[in-house]
Amino acid sequence: MAGVLAGMRVVEGSAFVAVPLAGMTLAQMGADVIRFDRPQGGLDAHRWPVTRDGTSLFWAGLNKGKRSLAVDMARPEGQEIVTDLICAPGPDAGMFLTNLRVRGWMDYPALKARRDDLIMVSLLGTRRGEPAVDYTVNPSLGFPMATGAEGSSDPVAHVLPAWDCIAGGMVVNALLAAERHRLRTGRGQVAELALKDVAAAMLANLGILGEVVANGVDRPKAGNSLYGAYGQDFLLACGRRVMVIGLTDRQWRGLVKVLGLAQEVANLGQRMALDLSREGDRWAAGKEITALFAPWFAARRLEEVAPLFDGAGLTWSVFRSFAEAVHQDPDLSEDNPMMRVIHQPGVGSLPVPGSPVSFSDLARMGPAPAPVLGEHTEEILGDVLGLGSGQIGKLMDQGVVAQGVVPKRAA
Amino acid sequence: MAGVLAGMRVVEGSAFVAVPLAGMTLAQMGADVIRFDRPQGGLDAHRWPVTRDGTSLFWAGLNKGKRSLAVDMARPEGQEIVTDLICAPGPDAGMFLTNLRVRGWMDYPALKARRDDLIMVSLLGTRRGEPAVDYTVNPSLGFPMATGAEGSSDPVAHVLPAWDCIAGGMVVNALLAAERHRLRTGRGQVAELALKDVAAAMLANLGILGEVVANGVDRPKAGNSLYGAYGQDFLLACGRRVMVIGLTDRQWRGLVKVLGLAQEVANLGQRMALDLSREGDRWAAGKEITALFAPWFAARRLEEVAPLFDGAGLTWSVFRSFAEAVHQDPDLSEDNPMMRVIHQPGVGSLPVPGSPVSFSDLARMGPAPAPVLGEHTEEILGDVLGLGSGQIGKLMDQGVVAQGVVPKRAA
Repeated sequence: MAGVLAGMRVVEGSAFVAVPLAGMTLAQMGADVIRFDRPQGGLDAHRWPVTRDGTSLFWAGLNKGKRSLAVDMARPEGQEIVTDLICAPGPDAGMFLTNLRVRGWMDYPALKARRDDLIMVSLLGTRRGEPAVDYTVNPSLGFPMATGAEGSSDPVAHVLPAWDCIAGGMVVNALLAAERHRLRTGRGQVAELALKDVAAAMLANLGILGEVVANGVDRPKAGNSLYGAYGQDFLLACGRRVMVIGLTDRQWRGLVKVLGLAQEVANLGQRMALDLSREGDRWAAGKEITALFAPWFAARRLEEVAPLFDGAGLTWSVFRSFAEAVHQDPDLSEDNPMMRVIHQPGVGSLPVPGSPVSFSDLARMGPAPAPVLGEHTEEILGDVLGLGSGQIGKLMDQGVVAQGVVPKRAA
Repeated sequence: MAGVLAGMRVVEGSAFVAVPLAGMTLAQMGADVIRFDRPQGGLDAHRWPVTRDGTSLFWAGLNKGKRSLAVDMARPEGQEIVTDLICAPGPDAGMFLTNLRVRGWMDYPALKARRDDLIMVSLLGTRRGEPAVDYTVNPSLGFPMATGAEGSSDPVAHVLPAWDCIAGGMVVNALLAAERHRLRTGRGQVAELALKDVAAAMLANLGILGEVVANGVDRPKAGNSLYGAYGQDFLLACGRRVMVIGLTDRQWRGLVKVLGLAQEVANLGQRMALDLSREGDRWAAGKEITALFAPWFAARRLEEVAPLFDGAGLTWSVFRSFAEAVHQDPDLSEDNPMMRVIHQPGVGSLPVPGSPVSFSDLARMGPAPAPVLGEHTEEILGDVLGLGSGQIGKLMDQGVVAQGVVPKRAA
């Protein structure tokens, strides 16, 4: 099945979330994405979660549909192979994604000397090249201090590596934009971005920086409330918890109507001298609204609430743990055309997603497993670099490259 | 200054985070992005945070650098203008981003009838077209139940609209990929994705789905610990809090060395029969490691710790509130070439980011303010649709379009 990016070839030298996710996103749209790693595996070869026998579920998740080359970059012959691969000819090739900071043979000037129209996208930690990960970027910009129960002063970090995921999307954007530019001008370039800058820009994009500067306020923790309008979690009689949203006027009116509390809400607005059809006024009356709504939820079970809410088109959801979501949510099963149960080497059979995007001019690409480390070494050296089997055999014997290896556990 | 996407024109019919962010991302790379809204403002015209006099800082943050058209889509003449705009000729035009669910005149078949090679990217809530927002998608997939203090059973939702931000990047990816396809084949298409699917795919991409299926476990809350290796927050003598990371072998050895606790760490490993050079073993011994490290931090102030950690190249950060970040972090000031202090109408002067990505073949584009609603109505009707001033004046008089209006407050 050909994807929307069929024909494009991208080389990836990476570890962890953002750049592997970027490469996978391209692969899931049909690009030929080649990830190279040292024969003992990259820095993320053992990243948790892992199976009971140590196979990284994280690695398997973020490298689906790529081809894998295992090559010893400590040796000049290995460096030569990687350089040849990145700079291989072809109008749809010469594209390189990386978050590795290799000076000298793998930096942009060196690679550009080998292919003048090379496109390289380089993700840094901070703009100054300092190390940074999601777990450090996030505290530095304030999100954990605004997360969690009202009144608490303990920071709560999110468990989703959100900045990495966002940065990964930006790496794809930058690559596709730079390739568009190359198609028009013939010129390649290096696009640089830093994880910290991606997060800093978003802080401003969401109006949080503006809130500090214009209003002189420091947003406090507000539990699970939807900021600036109405949205709240409620406990049901059955012990399940639901989130309900009254962000837009339509959502708010729908919610009040289903709960049958229109008169009570009107009275509350009058008592507080607020116009609850305005989102900011709903935010101001959040606690009182929640107190008014809570008994309704506390008296009902999920089986009763779900059809009522769905029938009225409300925006709501149930809370689940990860395991409950996997076992209960049809969106994580083959009921979802994005998902298919496939076999992942070292892991077993499980539901695996392809791209969340469907393109109407093309059949949806099914998900592909992640490669075993070095699974495509021979194939890549032959197809892309044009090496003969004798040459490939010699490189294998010398340990410059390796085929289908299980990553070595950390010493 | 010309951006990497100079010449591209994209029309956006949207509200809230994901699609506005996608349009802004394109604008910040140099595309001409036209957002249309009804004259009273879209659903997000008043979205919090807002200034004291009600100007939406959120809207200002997510619509920078776009052109704004105010048009009454309840009227056939307004629908005609929007259709003409979306389907305007030109090889670099005919691209439409939306999260509005308008059946009939603004759906893909109707628009395709007007421009056969139209590219449309449509973001849904769920794949079934049900409403969904970040605040509902997140609980349904399990993240809040895995966030927050160990042992707690209360869900903690993240305050960053992470799924929206990730989906926004995917909208850009889909548009650029579809445009690449159109350049090669002449064929347009509609690309569809759902916010819930973006999150469901990421749950699997990060190995969390695999962890449930392969290991039969439900990941518990673990406070601010870095999952699966070592990373922890510590309170300093001065009351400040820092996050330190020992994810890679290099980070871990660096941290232990700076703390001067190599022997104690070796003893701990021996006592627990763990090999602390392995990330999973560090995770298993996390509590004991933290107990060993905490007195070091409790005895030192930030002024002492910061130069030590920076000097050793450790991966670490300080915790800040939003206001502390804005006031203290140079990455949120003009010290950062991404940021510039500009004037935002209705808000005032504040540091505003451009794109986090710098492209070496082009000068960095400075940030542009968000438009006032309908700021470019005349200009767009003239330049893009070729209407004369008489026709534009008539449409204004009839209230079909409006120029430079302040969005009406919700009734």
